[in-house]
Amino acid sequence: MKRKKDYFYTQEVDTRFGDNDIFGHLNNVIYYSLFDSVINRFLIKKCKYDPLSSNIIAISPETRCKFRKSFKYPDTIIAGLSTFKIGKTSVIYDISLFSKKGQLPHAEGYFVHVFVKRKNMQEKVSIPKKVKFELLRI
Amino acid sequence: MKRKKDYFYTQEVDTRFGDNDIFGHLNNVIYYSLFDSVINRFLIKKCKYDPLSSNIIAISPETRCKFRKSFKYPDTIIAGLSTFKIGKTSVIYDISLFSKKGQLPHAEGYFVHVFVKRKNMQEKVSIPKKVKFELLRI
Amino acid sequence: MKRKKDYFYTQEVDTRFGDNDIFGHLNNVIYYSLFDSVINRFLIKKCKYDPLSSNIIAISPETRCKFRKSFKYPDTIIAGLSTFKIGKTSVIYDISLFSKKGQLPHAEGYFVHVFVKRKNMQEKVSIPKKVKFELLRI
Amino acid sequence: MKRKKDYFYTQEVDTRFGDNDIFGHLNNVIYYSLFDSVINRFLIKKCKYDPLSSNIIAISPETRCKFRKSFKYPDTIIAGLSTFKIGKTSVIYDISLFSKKGQLPHAEGYFVHVFVKRKNMQEKVSIPKKVKFELLRI
Repeated sequence: MKRKKDYFYTQEVDTRFGDNDIFGHLNNVIYYSLFDSVINRFLIKKCKYDPLSSNIIAISPETRCKFRKSFKYPDTIIAGLSTFKIGKTSVIYDISLFSKKGQLPHAEGYFVHVFVKRKNMQEKVSIPKKVKFELLRI
Repeated sequence: MKRKKDYFYTQEVDTRFGDNDIFGHLNNVIYYSLFDSVINRFLIKKCKYDPLSSNIIAISPETRCKFRKSFKYPDTIIAGLSTFKIGKTSVIYDISLFSKKGQLPHAEGYFVHVFVKRKNMQEKVSIPKKVKFELLRI
Repeated sequence: MKRKKDYFYTQEVDTRFGDNDIFGHLNNVIYYSLFDSVINRFLIKKCKYDPLSSNIIAISPETRCKFRKSFKYPDTIIAGLSTFKIGKTSVIYDISLFSKKGQLPHAEGYFVHVFVKRKNMQEKVSIPKKVKFELLRI
Repeated sequence: MKRKKDYFYTQEVDTRFGDNDIFGHLNNVIYYSLFDSVINRFLIKKCKYDPLSSNIIAISPETRCKFRKSFKYPDTIIAGLSTFKIGKTSVIYDISLFSKKGQLPHAEGYFVHVFVKRKNMQEKVSIPKKVKFELLRI
């Protein structure tokens, strides 16, 4: 299990009132919304990826999450992002969510992105150079 | 890979405009929202489970999804629900999402529920009898 | 206050586990998600509108909702759709949400759509003929 | 139309990938999610309100929004919060959403909260003192 300090790249994300379910905790679905947002923000801000116009887009064939400890709105969350594996046309991200204080993850995500041509959303292509460069750094 | 006809228990679920992301398809996060809704609806409607008041509640330590083919609003989706494993205090659901016409799944989910006491949300308890009875049927 | 029977056009919509907030009722935000979905489904299914490819798209400059009585997942909701006003380039929808049984609305929505050119999303255009025809019927 | 500098109390909120709809902009529904989150965060952080345990809770009988200019993920948004009216048992919030740079609002919200007893969620009660004190300051 990785700790917060093991992540080179982190993002702070906030929570919303509607994220809490009837048990008063973030619904399990919301964690995936955070994974998706943190990863795309990394691609957009660091890797010159533009999901609105790029010829190559990243789509997800598989995601997973282990939930260890709950969050609740209005918590602020720290997301740590790294990779399990960088392939030719795909990447498996390693993403963990932490509270502002603790070192142990509340949730551990496994998130696959495959890079494909926008026009058919099926034909696999090599990971763009700038993306690969930044993926290797985190 | 299971087909639609392999599921004994199914539910029809609808989609919402905001479910589509900028690629015009259901965002990956939404699939988990559907899993969660289908499973809890089964527990509430079939198993006399009431997430608002039951002493024993079901929480999720792990979920996974493989995305094979996209959906888009305003599609209507057929969810098939079964189990991979029924343990003493937990169950692993097998849930697939289908289009109204096809037999092959667009998405295959793996969703774990652990039954715990509501008051601390940690202490594991046996799956309630009525829930187990219904789980064994699907 | 309009009753269910006053609406010529209705749609059935389902609810999701995550729609419930910590008070155990549908969060106020979800009502707008249902409005948006019901209206666009009407435009797509009845009016040959395709938000993914049409040259003319419908965007919203204003929405409102009065909340009279709560819903909660796993309720099924009946939405009644009509119009307050049909202008040259815009329409104000009158939309109410009902339980399956009652005649009185749980929520009353006011939702404006302006039709604009997709390419700049600003230049107003006349409501497409087929849309206007169907709007006049409801 | 109020400007950013006219608001005494502001909060920074982030956006999520799934907030964008198929037009590449924040879906109209999301604005209400942000209103709800900003207002409850104010109540929780500033006014000692705890939606999970307080005897008195705030529920919403009406909300409205005028949309003037779009946002898109991954924008960061500045929310300005004030009040249109503070009554005996209810408050009408005035909430505007701004980009980090501009002074003019992208969206203007009108959001009513009525304070009621948690046990029946109907009986109106006076706005709690600490809440009123903080409302008068913004």
